[in-house]
Amino acid sequence: MELIRRNGVELTLAGARVVLEAAVEHAQSLGLKMVVAVADSGGWLVALFRMDGAKLTSVDIAMNKAFTAAGTRKPTHEYAEIGGAGGAAFGIHASNQGRFTVFGGGVPIFVDGQCIGAVGCSGGSAEEDRMVAEAGIAALLRCA
Amino acid sequence: MELIRRNGVELTLAGARVVLEAAVEHAQSLGLKMVVAVADSGGWLVALFRMDGAKLTSVDIAMNKAFTAAGTRKPTHEYAEIGGAGGAAFGIHASNQGRFTVFGGGVPIFVDGQCIGAVGCSGGSAEEDRMVAEAGIAALLRCA
Amino acid sequence: MELIRRNGVELTLAGARVVLEAAVEHAQSLGLKMVVAVADSGGWLVALFRMDGAKLTSVDIAMNKAFTAAGTRKPTHEYAEIGGAGGAAFGIHASNQGRFTVFGGGVPIFVDGQCIGAVGCSGGSAEEDRMVAEAGIAALLRCA
Amino acid sequence: MELIRRNGVELTLAGARVVLEAAVEHAQSLGLKMVVAVADSGGWLVALFRMDGAKLTSVDIAMNKAFTAAGTRKPTHEYAEIGGAGGAAFGIHASNQGRFTVFGGGVPIFVDGQCIGAVGCSGGSAEEDRMVAEAGIAALLRCA
Repeated sequence: MELIRRNGVELTLAGARVVLEAAVEHAQSLGLKMVVAVADSGGWLVALFRMDGAKLTSVDIAMNKAFTAAGTRKPTHEYAEIGGAGGAAFGIHASNQGRFTVFGGGVPIFVDGQCIGAVGCSGGSAEEDRMVAEAGIAALLRCA
Repeated sequence: MELIRRNGVELTLAGARVVLEAAVEHAQSLGLKMVVAVADSGGWLVALFRMDGAKLTSVDIAMNKAFTAAGTRKPTHEYAEIGGAGGAAFGIHASNQGRFTVFGGGVPIFVDGQCIGAVGCSGGSAEEDRMVAEAGIAALLRCA
Repeated sequence: MELIRRNGVELTLAGARVVLEAAVEHAQSLGLKMVVAVADSGGWLVALFRMDGAKLTSVDIAMNKAFTAAGTRKPTHEYAEIGGAGGAAFGIHASNQGRFTVFGGGVPIFVDGQCIGAVGCSGGSAEEDRMVAEAGIAALLRCA
Repeated sequence: MELIRRNGVELTLAGARVVLEAAVEHAQSLGLKMVVAVADSGGWLVALFRMDGAKLTSVDIAMNKAFTAAGTRKPTHEYAEIGGAGGAAFGIHASNQGRFTVFGGGVPIFVDGQCIGAVGCSGGSAEEDRMVAEAGIAALLRCA
């Protein structure tokens, strides 16, 4: 039996900054003011930018989206239906001290088939938040 | 009047481990990666296993399911309807510091008609989580 | 600049169970009833055993010790002085939602110079808790 | 009576980034691994960098220091004595949902006599954290 595993891939601050730059640039091109948060594979914040004029309350939301996408290894929009009213996992949003986010904008980052972290965006629609997060990740994957 | 009760049945760590082994084995046979938590009759954690690759956020959810099932002496899926939107107990999920879980996967353990604890599983669908919890309990009841 | 890092070492459930077995056995040999929690490098619970008769309140404390030792990459007893009354970091115990623990019993696990997780024990004195955690880690390092 | 004030000075994301760059560079020159958080005048996070290898638990602590320094318009080390055991404000660290930090490393940013935000650093000693925060602010004031 394998007691420890030695093939880990980790996100660095340098990598997180590439994500932030690209995400902020993409949000700007869409005329959006966002908070962009990058977490590691444990859901811990690595770096965060709040664009000028973005909502203050988006700070918490973006962090929670990154936390949720890292922790579940899934984009948060996949929880919109099952975690919503009448869904099979309704109420899951109260778990993890209320940090579990059930709407779009949190996207995990996969490298070599492994989740190395996640991006959480808040400030636009759930769909826009997701697109911006994906733009940030795409930039990282091009460079890494 | 009965001032104390002498017929208590209590779950031991050894019993909880039987539950965990069986639940993990059952989850593996279904190709699922789960967190399995076992609580005593007071909802307090006795033992927990997070399978490799299970969601991090499932740790909290599995613990909450076991807590809820032990505390209510009912399986958590029974709250899905009444605790959901429009249900008679909507809002109950915010009680107990947000630990009250209103979807399936938490199952109480009864021995001699007495609730001695509960199992909470998270990682599959609510239905799968419940089946895995029940498999764990069945193994315990076979041995006990 | 290094955008991602590919040399990670990870703790598995199998590894965490080796820690738990050895720690519980060591606690028993000392006549102590403990909760032993094993966290991964992000501080997330991998596995936990509460020995029969251990304090219920030790569940939370053991989890917090493992969380703190994993998060700081240091044994928690190193915070006893600086985090105590009059210490340079007094008040740090209120951080991280009150989970930051400033007394002994949380010990990080290092493999290849990398923190792969931590063990938190609660039930004895701070010194006993630490010794039991170290016994658990020693068993893992012998096998891994 | 002045119903609104028109001479407000506000920190921008660009300004916060100057702080982060300088603080991280200064921490590196000291051989320290830190989390650096920059908050606006309301204590809300504007930007954050966690240096590779910094403690995970420092994320929360750095954010809390920036929050406290912005909210009090004072460096957090000024609370070490009065907020410590036997101090006149002992217990204050439990206020603001436990975010009130009573040890050094949080420093407010003043421009034109007005508090426009704060920097919180965590990862070194309270004294080192404070020096790194001040280095970040000095860089901003040189450019602004």
